[in-house]
Amino acid sequence: DNAVVDLGRQARCGFGEAIYGEGKSADLIIQIVRAQLDQGQQSLVTRITDEVAEEVSRHFDHCRANPLAKTLRIATQEIDPPIDDQSHRVHVAVVTAGSTDQGIAEEAIETLGWMGIPVRSYSDIGVAGPQRLVAAVPRLREASALVVVAGMEGALPSVVAGHISAPIIAVPTSVGYGANLGGVTALLGMLTSCAAGVAVVNIDAGFKGAYMAGLVVRQ
Amino acid sequence: DNAVVDLGRQARCGFGEAIYGEGKSADLIIQIVRAQLDQGQQSLVTRITDEVAEEVSRHFDHCRANPLAKTLRIATQEIDPPIDDQSHRVHVAVVTAGSTDQGIAEEAIETLGWMGIPVRSYSDIGVAGPQRLVAAVPRLREASALVVVAGMEGALPSVVAGHISAPIIAVPTSVGYGANLGGVTALLGMLTSCAAGVAVVNIDAGFKGAYMAGLVVRQ
Amino acid sequence: DNAVVDLGRQARCGFGEAIYGEGKSADLIIQIVRAQLDQGQQSLVTRITDEVAEEVSRHFDHCRANPLAKTLRIATQEIDPPIDDQSHRVHVAVVTAGSTDQGIAEEAIETLGWMGIPVRSYSDIGVAGPQRLVAAVPRLREASALVVVAGMEGALPSVVAGHISAPIIAVPTSVGYGANLGGVTALLGMLTSCAAGVAVVNIDAGFKGAYMAGLVVRQ
Amino acid sequence: DNAVVDLGRQARCGFGEAIYGEGKSADLIIQIVRAQLDQGQQSLVTRITDEVAEEVSRHFDHCRANPLAKTLRIATQEIDPPIDDQSHRVHVAVVTAGSTDQGIAEEAIETLGWMGIPVRSYSDIGVAGPQRLVAAVPRLREASALVVVAGMEGALPSVVAGHISAPIIAVPTSVGYGANLGGVTALLGMLTSCAAGVAVVNIDAGFKGAYMAGLVVRQ
Amino acid sequence: DNAVVDLGRQARCGFGEAIYGEGKSADLIIQIVRAQLDQGQQSLVTRITDEVAEEVSRHFDHCRANPLAKTLRIATQEIDPPIDDQSHRVHVAVVTAGSTDQGIAEEAIETLGWMGIPVRSYSDIGVAGPQRLVAAVPRLREASALVVVAGMEGALPSVVAGHISAPIIAVPTSVGYGANLGGVTALLGMLTSCAAGVAVVNIDAGFKGAYMAGLVVRQ
Amino acid sequence: DNAVVDLGRQARCGFGEAIYGEGKSADLIIQIVRAQLDQGQQSLVTRITDEVAEEVSRHFDHCRANPLAKTLRIATQEIDPPIDDQSHRVHVAVVTAGSTDQGIAEEAIETLGWMGIPVRSYSDIGVAGPQRLVAAVPRLREASALVVVAGMEGALPSVVAGHISAPIIAVPTSVGYGANLGGVTALLGMLTSCAAGVAVVNIDAGFKGAYMAGLVVRQ
Amino acid sequence: DNAVVDLGRQARCGFGEAIYGEGKSADLIIQIVRAQLDQGQQSLVTRITDEVAEEVSRHFDHCRANPLAKTLRIATQEIDPPIDDQSHRVHVAVVTAGSTDQGIAEEAIETLGWMGIPVRSYSDIGVAGPQRLVAAVPRLREASALVVVAGMEGALPSVVAGHISAPIIAVPTSVGYGANLGGVTALLGMLTSCAAGVAVVNIDAGFKGAYMAGLVVRQ
Amino acid sequence: DNAVVDLGRQARCGFGEAIYGEGKSADLIIQIVRAQLDQGQQSLVTRITDEVAEEVSRHFDHCRANPLAKTLRIATQEIDPPIDDQSHRVHVAVVTAGSTDQGIAEEAIETLGWMGIPVRSYSDIGVAGPQRLVAAVPRLREASALVVVAGMEGALPSVVAGHISAPIIAVPTSVGYGANLGGVTALLGMLTSCAAGVAVVNIDAGFKGAYMAGLVVRQ
Ligand SMILES: Nc1ncnc2c1ncn2[C@@H]1O[C@H](COP(=O)(O)O)[C@@H](O)[C@H]1O
Ligand SMILES: Nc1ncnc2c1ncn2[C@@H]1O[C@H](COP(=O)(O)O)[C@@H](O)[C@H]1O
Ligand SMILES: Nc1ncnc2c1ncn2[C@@H]1O[C@H](COP(=O)(O)O)[C@@H](O)[C@H]1O
Ligand SMILES: Nc1ncnc2c1ncn2[C@@H]1O[C@H](COP(=O)(O)O)[C@@H](O)[C@H]1O
Ligand SMILES: [Mg+2]
Ligand SMILES: [Mg+2]
Ligand SMILES: [Mg+2]
Ligand SMILES: [Mg+2]
Ligand SMILES: [Mg+2]
Ligand SMILES: [Mg+2]
Ligand SMILES: [Mg+2]
Ligand SMILES: [Mg+2]
Repeated sequence: DNAVVDLGRQARCGFGEAIYGEGKSADLIIQIVRAQLDQGQQSLVTRITDEVAEEVSRHFDHCRANPLAKTLRIATQEIDPPIDDQSHRVHVAVVTAGSTDQGIAEEAIETLGWMGIPVRSYSDIGVAGPQRLVAAVPRLREASALVVVAGMEGALPSVVAGHISAPIIAVPTSVGYGANLGGVTALLGMLTSCAAGVAVVNIDAGFKGAYMAGLVVRQ
Repeated sequence: DNAVVDLGRQARCGFGEAIYGEGKSADLIIQIVRAQLDQGQQSLVTRITDEVAEEVSRHFDHCRANPLAKTLRIATQEIDPPIDDQSHRVHVAVVTAGSTDQGIAEEAIETLGWMGIPVRSYSDIGVAGPQRLVAAVPRLREASALVVVAGMEGALPSVVAGHISAPIIAVPTSVGYGANLGGVTALLGMLTSCAAGVAVVNIDAGFKGAYMAGLVVRQ
Repeated sequence: DNAVVDLGRQARCGFGEAIYGEGKSADLIIQIVRAQLDQGQQSLVTRITDEVAEEVSRHFDHCRANPLAKTLRIATQEIDPPIDDQSHRVHVAVVTAGSTDQGIAEEAIETLGWMGIPVRSYSDIGVAGPQRLVAAVPRLREASALVVVAGMEGALPSVVAGHISAPIIAVPTSVGYGANLGGVTALLGMLTSCAAGVAVVNIDAGFKGAYMAGLVVRQ
Repeated sequence: DNAVVDLGRQARCGFGEAIYGEGKSADLIIQIVRAQLDQGQQSLVTRITDEVAEEVSRHFDHCRANPLAKTLRIATQEIDPPIDDQSHRVHVAVVTAGSTDQGIAEEAIETLGWMGIPVRSYSDIGVAGPQRLVAAVPRLREASALVVVAGMEGALPSVVAGHISAPIIAVPTSVGYGANLGGVTALLGMLTSCAAGVAVVNIDAGFKGAYMAGLVVRQ
Repeated sequence: DNAVVDLGRQARCGFGEAIYGEGKSADLIIQIVRAQLDQGQQSLVTRITDEVAEEVSRHFDHCRANPLAKTLRIATQEIDPPIDDQSHRVHVAVVTAGSTDQGIAEEAIETLGWMGIPVRSYSDIGVAGPQRLVAAVPRLREASALVVVAGMEGALPSVVAGHISAPIIAVPTSVGYGANLGGVTALLGMLTSCAAGVAVVNIDAGFKGAYMAGLVVRQ
Repeated sequence: DNAVVDLGRQARCGFGEAIYGEGKSADLIIQIVRAQLDQGQQSLVTRITDEVAEEVSRHFDHCRANPLAKTLRIATQEIDPPIDDQSHRVHVAVVTAGSTDQGIAEEAIETLGWMGIPVRSYSDIGVAGPQRLVAAVPRLREASALVVVAGMEGALPSVVAGHISAPIIAVPTSVGYGANLGGVTALLGMLTSCAAGVAVVNIDAGFKGAYMAGLVVRQ
Repeated sequence: DNAVVDLGRQARCGFGEAIYGEGKSADLIIQIVRAQLDQGQQSLVTRITDEVAEEVSRHFDHCRANPLAKTLRIATQEIDPPIDDQSHRVHVAVVTAGSTDQGIAEEAIETLGWMGIPVRSYSDIGVAGPQRLVAAVPRLREASALVVVAGMEGALPSVVAGHISAPIIAVPTSVGYGANLGGVTALLGMLTSCAAGVAVVNIDAGFKGAYMAGLVVRQ
Repeated sequence: DNAVVDLGRQARCGFGEAIYGEGKSADLIIQIVRAQLDQGQQSLVTRITDEVAEEVSRHFDHCRANPLAKTLRIATQEIDPPIDDQSHRVHVAVVTAGSTDQGIAEEAIETLGWMGIPVRSYSDIGVAGPQRLVAAVPRLREASALVVVAGMEGALPSVVAGHISAPIIAVPTSVGYGANLGGVTALLGMLTSCAAGVAVVNIDAGFKGAYMAGLVVRQ
């Protein structure tokens, strides 16, 4: 009874309340999921540990856990994987700078799966190897919104934005060390981007980046 | 010859290069504007002082200066004021928390004018007087994207997002003192919003907030 | 003999010295508790681990441990749970924004129990689901002081203060990640609140928030 | 029309909206004051410059400007100075550590005047000269709430709290240089006070400190 | 051969090189100690873990480990405990604010033992219980230098300095949580002390505080 | 007599002591320049205001002031402008991201002039307009060292480094606002560059960037 | 009557209360000085502007203003300049790294003059020209305490401490730009000095550095 | 397929992509190494744990692991240890301040080994024992570039630069505690060095320091 699930959020905001998994016990999560399923809402838990995800999964019939993403989805029926778009016109592109950023990209992709929005994924095309981005530009220009995930100095969103007219949601990651200050450097860099069409969400917030891009696509 | 105007940006990104006025001489600005007008592009100068705006204006026939916004627009023909939407379906809502945030909101509105995108403006409806926001919610829900401008603790975007399904671009301002740290507090607060559909741009970046919202609307 | 218990504090300040448990051995805590009980004072230990709490408890007859709160109370007679007010006029309201903030709220409630002050508890009514707070406002207005506990951007105290005339003690929590900077963002946001009747205590300081509210009620 | 005055605040919160003067033009302030006076509310403007205060004053019959406090009060009838309590039981004590903190203390005293709450003032009794505080303690113990104003390391609230059972609102000031970081050091120090009955407001926030103490006294 | 022991430091600076134990293997420490003993110098290792201390101790005949202080002393002959002064005129006073600061005080006392300088120790006399300090003042005034150790807001050195004419070396500790920022708050507070006769060393630097006080006494 | 000019630096380090102009009176600068000229050394003053530069210039026969660079050079004979390389093999490339960075680039170019090292300058080719850099790459690859000057998010050095094998000295500038934190964001970004061949100097340190690149070229 | 002069400080602490001039009006300073002179105490005002110093000086017969130091001394009889020691055994050495640090050194020297303690001054012998320090070492070793003043990276105290057995009080200055963060970098560097005999005071705190060194010498 | 190895980097930049090992699984590293070996490129993995290094090593014939450096090199033929230069003219000097900095120096030395560039190593010659550096200066002057590794206050690069005309790459380390802020203090100090010929890389970035120095030597 310490949780008051916001069951009206789906009606007001278009999607239900995602469950922030960090620091929550399996018991608390199960109680919230039950309340959501009862209302015919799908559940998405983010930032959940493998142990808690496993324990929660034992209580429901239809679950989809992604350990790299640290997400768990639960529904009253079979859950499909996120829609990997190759031909749709309307989709979100999820881009990473380095291979170590993939976990955060996976959180974004799972969120788009939960929202029912198609996605195309581009991995490890950061600025140190510029030909990788150049090769991707023509396909990137087909997306309706982009989620660009990068750690270290976080330069990739600025560089992508130089080629693209769709809105970009930049997700800084905590990948790096020393002066990267746990992702604060990438965050600040993205906020002061010399490119105009870039907005930013919290460090490692793959969920928020995807949610925002998903809303854009739905408008 | 210290400026290399990016004349291809309009083709690549949908809109030309806005001129960042801070620290630029009138001479340098005039030179850049000339290059843009020659290519049939409209100019938008941001963060320009009254003195420089006046000097630049003397060199062109069609200008629109907004001193509160600290912007200057220049074109080869008459410039209309931003389109104040009352009936269009597709528009951006620009919202402020306090009356001191109005300058940044004006920068956003001028930018939307330059982009040719309709706008509705809501001023001074911050959280300390909650009935003000509640009254505005039904009309706010008609916008395709929102720019929410707030200083001090920057709580307004989170609260608006609890009522709305369109994407919100939050613009933190430097309004406040002491622990507001020149706007950093509002910025950090908006980034860690408990609401999902909020992305953030730089402190006092009315231009970027509007540009991003404009791109959303155009998708 | 490394501890000089401040036994006069109860006379000077109204309540005895709470024992800050972090970094203290069970032996040291036992020695301090003994000195307090000898003077007819009740003991409250905060931020104590389960292991140390258990070890200390073995040495005394009347203990009340709350593992979620990380507190331990010790007295020379039976200890009642905190008084859950439903009808008293004079009480403190303890409010949380999210269910993950509950541990800090529990520390506050235990502290009010130790002070002998009635309390009403409201959980998980943060701003992302605004109807939850609106529903609680009429009862919240009956409190003589409020302790409002919130992590992430810490917007709840500002929003509550827009509805209430009693003084609010805001307790920022470290719930969140990235730009929440271990609770510093919530702390700064609460300090720069646009609402006037809000004062702030340290991050995760449920004890201090409750102590301050308790003093208010006793005036 | 960029200002939406929160005229219901007096009913909801006990006192009307104080006008934050920083960055507001005389015109905007006059417009807000007019709206408040029309509703029978007194106005308090804080952080106002001498020039703006003078210009605003020319438009109203009953004003009280305090340049050291940087405040301006406006009403529909004669304004008395704050009530200097010598015999009342119920009052707020306003204490400063150094003589340079007096401006912030004055802002607090004017705010209490506007609230109609008696005040006793103690100046320049900081910890470097400990006998000064010791001499004041017996009278300080008669207050129902204290506002303690200090810059530099901000140690005074902790030390006062060691002697007192009333709640203390600590106001850090920006007095000092170097490692005082514009008041952030005093702020952080007060937040981590080893004394329990201390809550904190923003740097230089004499208004907030007094408002909070005033609410305490009114409960 | 990665260590070049500075064997001339005793001649140049009065005392040999203390060995900073953090991050050093037992092997490396043993090698350095051997080089020092060979030159007739005593060794002091600081910030050493229990495990490493034990392993190092097995290689030498005369050792003195203090696990609370995290120090290890090694010599070619019997090592006496630090001289606890009760009658000497010339000594250093080591003072703590809270009982949790004792580990750092112990590091200071062991360092003074290694320097051969008498010491008087005063524990847990912080400002929240002011009578504790007042009682100690007459004896504190007999010291030639003081090391004052405090965490949380670090107010104690300022308050002691108000009573004393000997120089005070303030040692901030990391005791506390939240806004104490790992000791940075106490450090900044001590640096901006309103009292003149206070200089500061690094956070948790009991060694440096004592070394500096020891040099003062030797002048 | 408050200045002890380091006249041996030219012999030890290859170049004389540059005079840091900030906060120095014209008199002090004249005295230092005299000492250098007497030893047959050329003088370079950096960060000098127009007024002081003018006053100093009146005392010497051969001066070269660059107000945009805020530098002044003084010698015992005619001073040539920096060598603008078009054909030499060995030169330093000085690159800027935006036209507002030009002042810092000029400081770098003047420093290379003082060192006698050829320079090629590339202005305003930042990442928002990517074709500008691509066009410059073939010529950039001819440099023996590069000084890359950028403000805002400071992404340019990382991107240049993806194309080049010569060492890059990155100079962050304070151009930008809000989250750029006076250049700290660009600085941190450059330090955490995902490209390997980038080292960094202080914010706005055109002098140091050039000096370092000049040393590289001379090896 | 907003100032309560601490006239007992001379008896308790050895020297009277120095007047912190920043933010104080001439009137307030005059009032405090009068109270001190009446008790037979000399006055020292620090951080006073030229204008205020001049106005205060007009009210007293015996004054000594040092505009570079921003100090003013006032006494009831003729004031001698600080004692420049050439032969005394017991003195304080005041050392600067660069010529721009001289103002802070002057504040230290004036403070020692007020305390009646002999001083030797060494200017501009920072680490970039190492032979300058080496030349001074033999004389530096005669001091009983050293005040070492340095800006930029603040390396000088560590290097001096490698040669000396007297205690060193390090005074960081705000000389520098960019990553020097207004002196915070020098401050932090001095606090983490690899040398043991170094304690630190606030940024630009020439007064405190000298006061502390003076106390050392008096023990 | 989450990794897009930048196989063209060797051609563009002179050396292949080093593999940043932190957060990468053994599987991912093996996949990247295979791609590099297939192109005839040697692999260098940095910041790899012992466990992962061991697992990766089992899949290749020619490996060189350095656990102190936390590096792993892999090639298609026998790997020689880094070339320890005693007679070559052209080499890089790698210098450490303290013996605890050795791990970072080893990362630098392994990187130079991978680049095929000779190296001379100087350990533990920091400023607290100045004669150690003085003894090394003549040999240090023979290097074509220097990597200077230091923690705590990071003073060593400034001091070395006072003696040397080759360019210095300063590598701050996280060695130290408290006010060293995880290496940020050393980083900031090196960036504000009073010596001109010093550029800086990230905290603990032995790889980058060596890579940069290696590029200098190859020019
Ligand atoms: N120790 C290191 N420090 C900084 N950058 C590194 C290090 N090791 C490898 N790198 C670079 O980091 C990037 C790795 O990105 P990724 O491996 O795709 O996440 C490559 O450009 C490497 O050259
Ligand atoms: N990964 C995430 N990042 C940020 N916010 C989240 C995340 N996952 C869930 N949330 C939001 O966090 C809030 C959860 O608060 P509570 O679960 O009550 O502590 C809800 O408003 C969620 O929509
Ligand atoms: N959770 C808490 N947060 C802040 N202060 C506390 C807490 N619990 C106890 N204290 C205070 O911390 C001080 C304890 O210092 P000591 O136990 O001597 O280290 C006392 O003044 C307590 O009143
Ligand atoms: N623009 C600059 N940035 C950084 N250091 C500089 C600059 N100009 C001169 N310097 C160095 O700063 C030191 C000047 O110290 P001083 O002039 O004695 O205060 C010398 O070592 C110069 O080489
Ligand atoms: Mg990669
Ligand atoms: Mg308003
Ligand atoms: Mg919730
Ligand atoms: Mg005073
Ligand atoms: Mg205690
Ligand atoms: Mg440009
Ligand atoms: Mg100099
Ligand atoms: Mg060593």
